[in-house]
Parts: sequence; C-alpha cells; structure tokens
Amino acid sequence: MTELKNDRYLRALLKQPVDVTPVWMMRQAGRYLPEYKATRAEAGDFMALCTNPELACEVTLQPLRRFKLDAAILFSDILTIPDAMGLGLYFETGEGPKFERPIQSIADVDKLPVVDPEIELKYVMDAVRTIRKNLQGSVPLIGFSGSPWTLATYMVEGGSSKAFTKIKKMAFAEPNTLHKLLDKLADSVIVYLNAQIAAGAQSVMVFDTWGGVLSPRDYKLFSLQYMEKIVAGLTRTYEGKKIPVTLFTKNGGMWLESIAATGCDALGLDWTIDIKEAKARVGDKVALQGNMDPSILYAGKERIEQEVQDILAGFGEGEGHVFNLGHGIHLDVPPENAGHFVEAVHKYSGQYHK
Amino acid sequence: MTELKNDRYLRALLKQPVDVTPVWMMRQAGRYLPEYKATRAEAGDFMALCTNPELACEVTLQPLRRFKLDAAILFSDILTIPDAMGLGLYFETGEGPKFERPIQSIADVDKLPVVDPEIELKYVMDAVRTIRKNLQGSVPLIGFSGSPWTLATYMVEGGSSKAFTKIKKMAFAEPNTLHKLLDKLADSVIVYLNAQIAAGAQSVMVFDTWGGVLSPRDYKLFSLQYMEKIVAGLTRTYEGKKIPVTLFTKNGGMWLESIAATGCDALGLDWTIDIKEAKARVGDKVALQGNMDPSILYAGKERIEQEVQDILAGFGEGEGHVFNLGHGIHLDVPPENAGHFVEAVHKYSGQYHK
Repeated sequence: MTELKNDRYLRALLKQPVDVTPVWMMRQAGRYLPEYKATRAEAGDFMALCTNPELACEVTLQPLRRFKLDAAILFSDILTIPDAMGLGLYFETGEGPKFERPIQSIADVDKLPVVDPEIELKYVMDAVRTIRKNLQGSVPLIGFSGSPWTLATYMVEGGSSKAFTKIKKMAFAEPNTLHKLLDKLADSVIVYLNAQIAAGAQSVMVFDTWGGVLSPRDYKLFSLQYMEKIVAGLTRTYEGKKIPVTLFTKNGGMWLESIAATGCDALGLDWTIDIKEAKARVGDKVALQGNMDPSILYAGKERIEQEVQDILAGFGEGEGHVFNLGHGIHLDVPPENAGHFVEAVHKYSGQYHK
Repeated sequence: MTELKNDRYLRALLKQPVDVTPVWMMRQAGRYLPEYKATRAEAGDFMALCTNPELACEVTLQPLRRFKLDAAILFSDILTIPDAMGLGLYFETGEGPKFERPIQSIADVDKLPVVDPEIELKYVMDAVRTIRKNLQGSVPLIGFSGSPWTLATYMVEGGSSKAFTKIKKMAFAEPNTLHKLLDKLADSVIVYLNAQIAAGAQSVMVFDTWGGVLSPRDYKLFSLQYMEKIVAGLTRTYEGKKIPVTLFTKNGGMWLESIAATGCDALGLDWTIDIKEAKARVGDKVALQGNMDPSILYAGKERIEQEVQDILAGFGEGEGHVFNLGHGIHLDVPPENAGHFVEAVHKYSGQYHK
C-alpha cells in the first residue's frame, strides 16, 4: 500500500504531534453537494449508491476534491448489518430508514443469521478497497458501523423513533431478549469492522446515535457494555500500523469518563458539551473529535471563523484534537460555507501545535 | 382560599421537611387514562378540551381520583401563547402541533401583539380558577408555560422539528431577529404565569423542552438568559405564600449549575442524569424534581419499585426532592403501573425523611 501523504488525522487520534489540527465532516459526502446529487440520481436511489462500489467511491472522493479535508470516510449506511441479516431495509422519502421485518420477539432474535462480511456485505468491502486504492495515499480512510444499541433501536422500532417506546419496553420488560440481540450485534460489528480494516480502512468509528436516550445506568448496560466488547474485539494494529478507534455517543456528554474507559482511542463529541470541559475530564486518556454545531454553517464566513477559533481555543495547546462537526452536515448548507469551515480550522490551529 | 391539606409538594420545592417524598407525573392527565379519552371525545378535540374550563378541570382531576398524587397540574398546552398571538395553532394526527403562520422575518416578530392573559387567554385563567376551586385544598395546583426558546422553536419551525434548522439559521445568521422574538416571549410568559398565580396556581413550572439542542454557550444566550428574565419577573410570594418556580430543560443535565444560578427554586431533571450527581452539583442551592425514565412504567411492578428505590437512594437523606418522571408518561402505559409508581414513592421514601 502507498505511504500516507497526510497522516494528521491518524496522528491526532493517537495524540501524536501535528502541524495543524486535522478536520473532516460527518456526512461530508452528501446531499449538500450538487455533484453528490448527480451521482445519486445516476445510481437510482440511496441503497443503489451504497451497493455500487464505483459510485460509492466516487461520492466518497467528491468532498476531497473541493476541500482540504484530512480524512475520507467510507460512503455507506449504518444499517447495512441488519439489512444483511434479512430485515429488509428500505427508505421512504422524508421518513428515514425503515425495516420490513422488525424484531419483535426472542424467536426473531434467535433466527438472525451470522453475517459474513465478505459475502452478504461484500459490496461494502469492495467499496473500501476501491476507495482506498483511489485515494492513492492522499488521506486516511475511515470505516464505520452503528453501535449495537443504535442498530437495535431501528431493528426493534422498525425505523426512526422519537420516544423509543418499543425498544425500551423490551429493555425493561424483556431484558434478556434485548441483551441477546445486542450481543449478536456486537459480534457482527466486530467481524464487520475487522473486515473493513482488512479491506483498507485505516481507522474505524462506531456511531452510537441513540445511546443518549438512556439513563446513565441503562446506557452502560445496553449501549456502552457492547461498545466495550467491540473495542476489545477489534484489530488494533494492521500491517504494522495502529488502527485508531473512535466512539461517538450523541448526547453522551455526561458519560465521557465511562466511554473513555472502554479502551478506545478517541471520543466523538456533539456540540452540547464545551470541549474545554471534555478535555479536562478525559483528555489525558483519549483524543477528542468535534464539536461545532453543524447549524453554524448556516451563518456567514465571519461567524464560522469565530466559532472555529473559539473551539480551538477551548481545546487549547496540546495534541489529540480532530476538528469535526458535532453531527452530520445539513443538506441545505451552502458548500462554500463548508469550505470556510475547513480552511478556518487549518488557518487558526497552527498556533496550538508547537 | 381553603388551607392546603397536603402541602408536601410545595414544602419539598422549598427544601422544607416532609414525611414522605411528594410525587406527581408530567402529563398525568392524559391519553393513558380511559376516562381522559372519554372526556376528550366529549370535547371534540384537544384544543376544544383546553379551551373548555369545566372539561379542562375534569381531566386535571381525573388522575387524582386514581392515584395519591401530591400535586395537580393545569391541563393546557405549552403553545397557548403563540396561538393567542395569532399564529394559528392546529394539530395533525400523529404529527404534533403546527402553526399556520410561522415566524419568518423581523417584520413577523414586530407584528406580534402583546397578549393580555385575561382576554386572549382567559380560558386558561378560567381553567386555573375552576381547578383551584374544585381541588378544595386537597393538593397544590401547578401552573406552567413553555420557555421562550421552546415556544420560538415551534413558532419559527412551524411545528415539531428534528434538527431545528430554521430557528438555528435565524440564531446564527440573524441573531437580532431571534433575540427580539425571545424577549417578547419572555415578557409574555411573565404576564401569563403571573396571571396564573393570581388565578390560583400555587407553583409554576417553565418547560424548556428544546434547550438541550443548543451548545453550552448558545443555550445560555438563547434559552437560559430568557428564563432568568422570567424568574426575575415572577410573583414569588402571593397572598403571603411563597410560589416556588421550577425550570426544566430536557437534556440540560450538563448545565445544572447555570440553571440553578437563575434564582429558581427547583430544577426538573430528565433521566439522563444520575440524581445523586445532580444533588452533589446543585442540591445546596435548589430542590430537584425527577427523574425516572417514563419507559420504566412499561415494566412490571417489581422493576418499577426497584427503580423508585434506586432513585430515592440516589437522592438520599435530606429535603428538596419531588419525585417525577423525567418526561411525560407514555400514552400506552397501563394505568395500574402509574399506580405502582406513585405508591412505591410514598412507601419507600419515609426512611429518608427523619
């Protein structure tokens, strides 16, 4: 494999010195870019795009042509595993992902097959290989998965949810069923991410989008425990290179100490926590990724630059910061504003790295 | 006015000694009760129920007939103020509240009228008077309002929202428009809550359902600042009785210190924070209300009792705890489970009050 020309992202995750703070954006390949919309139209629909390695590679690379991003992230969906398990993923316009056959009982859980990433999810591995090759060592490639709890919410609710009543009913009235499901998912995520690493992912991230809807104790029991199992089961060094692992629980700001104790390399932060406080609490243990409110990108260049400077000053001197948005970029953000954001991170961060 | 027979709720909010921990439930008058559904059917629809003082009184009292609750809460909607301002509140089945004429510009904000609670919102004041009279001093009556930020989210988004992109666009690209709106709303909430107090509310609560979608700095700027103005503007003693004020920001667990510093008497807690931690952080300043995950009510009696005991033990000895759910009771909870919950709080809390 080609040596990396820009390894700032990996170095920052490992708390090693960098010249400027690396930056990428969650959902950087997406609908705010006209070229993405064109490729998606060519593919047909969202899942057709995900399952076509050439087109998935194309959209992964698109934002890198526009902006000096320090990492690429595999273009895929968090729900590929339950889809491969046979739940029948589909998308209804404006309603988010849905499953044709949601999990309703222990019998449904028992029936879930073990998924082989190089068979049922070969299209993801082919995308990873294609992207890694086409990146030509320019920046590292991030692989990812949803967390077991987050995957389970969609699998049990049958789609997106507001109050998560079905999965919580299962959690509190039938906890053994849910634990069995979460354990199966943790095992699947481990083999899925390890396959992504073998296919070329140079870092992996676990998205726990919905861990924050739980109480502190239930978060540990139903979400964190299974992410910890994943961290322990991942390939942490591949072909002599460290593979950093980032865990991101949205609305998990109160539990950073527990997340940092899993043995992961970095924590993703949403914008509801002050990064200065986060660093004081866990910055000696892990790197931090975040944490600008993606809605700031609706403002003008000056306001964006100010916010970037405030967050950089909040983290202050020292290593271990990957700049990012606290959640995915909104689809109606002007692309030039994303450009101002990326430029500002590089422009104003040099002073913090000596 | 009749003397209160049960003043546990008011005493706990003022950190005065009680025999057992008082308990009530957010949305205790609601769709999980068959008698509520019958009265609502009689009224016609939700707003017809809110605007009919006799029926609003009837549904307010219904849960008190079933359970030994320590407080009644006015049956109303958080969006009465913007509706009275002329935005045209309506409800679409399964979609939550909507406004016919959302706020889109500074001109829209300038046009908003000053609302007189005894004219445009007389139906609310009549409901307060009717409920207070019919309670016959059994338990105190809680009045409430939405917070300025929360009201503004509905007014600008035109209804419920997932990513709050419209109001955040306003916040970051046109902050003066939003501040003008929030300031007008804060003034309206002050006169609205003071009118509720004059009509008979013995305690008031401000619901900041959506403050938690902001960054720490933006929360202070766009939500907390205006709640602080409200706290300062409220009638805190009425006819010789203290009127306790409770502020509740959902997902505000990281900012408890700032909320406690507003001068309010109590903080509402959702279930994402450990009440033991919350007490350690702010319990010398304010009382705490909360904080069981409402989904625990899906479980059996034993699990509900266990959770109640855990939360009571978390708060531990000492005064200043009002037991509640961390958010509204779900509509498909069996009423008997709500009964187990209320009973458990009284049954297991005596040991913490000496």
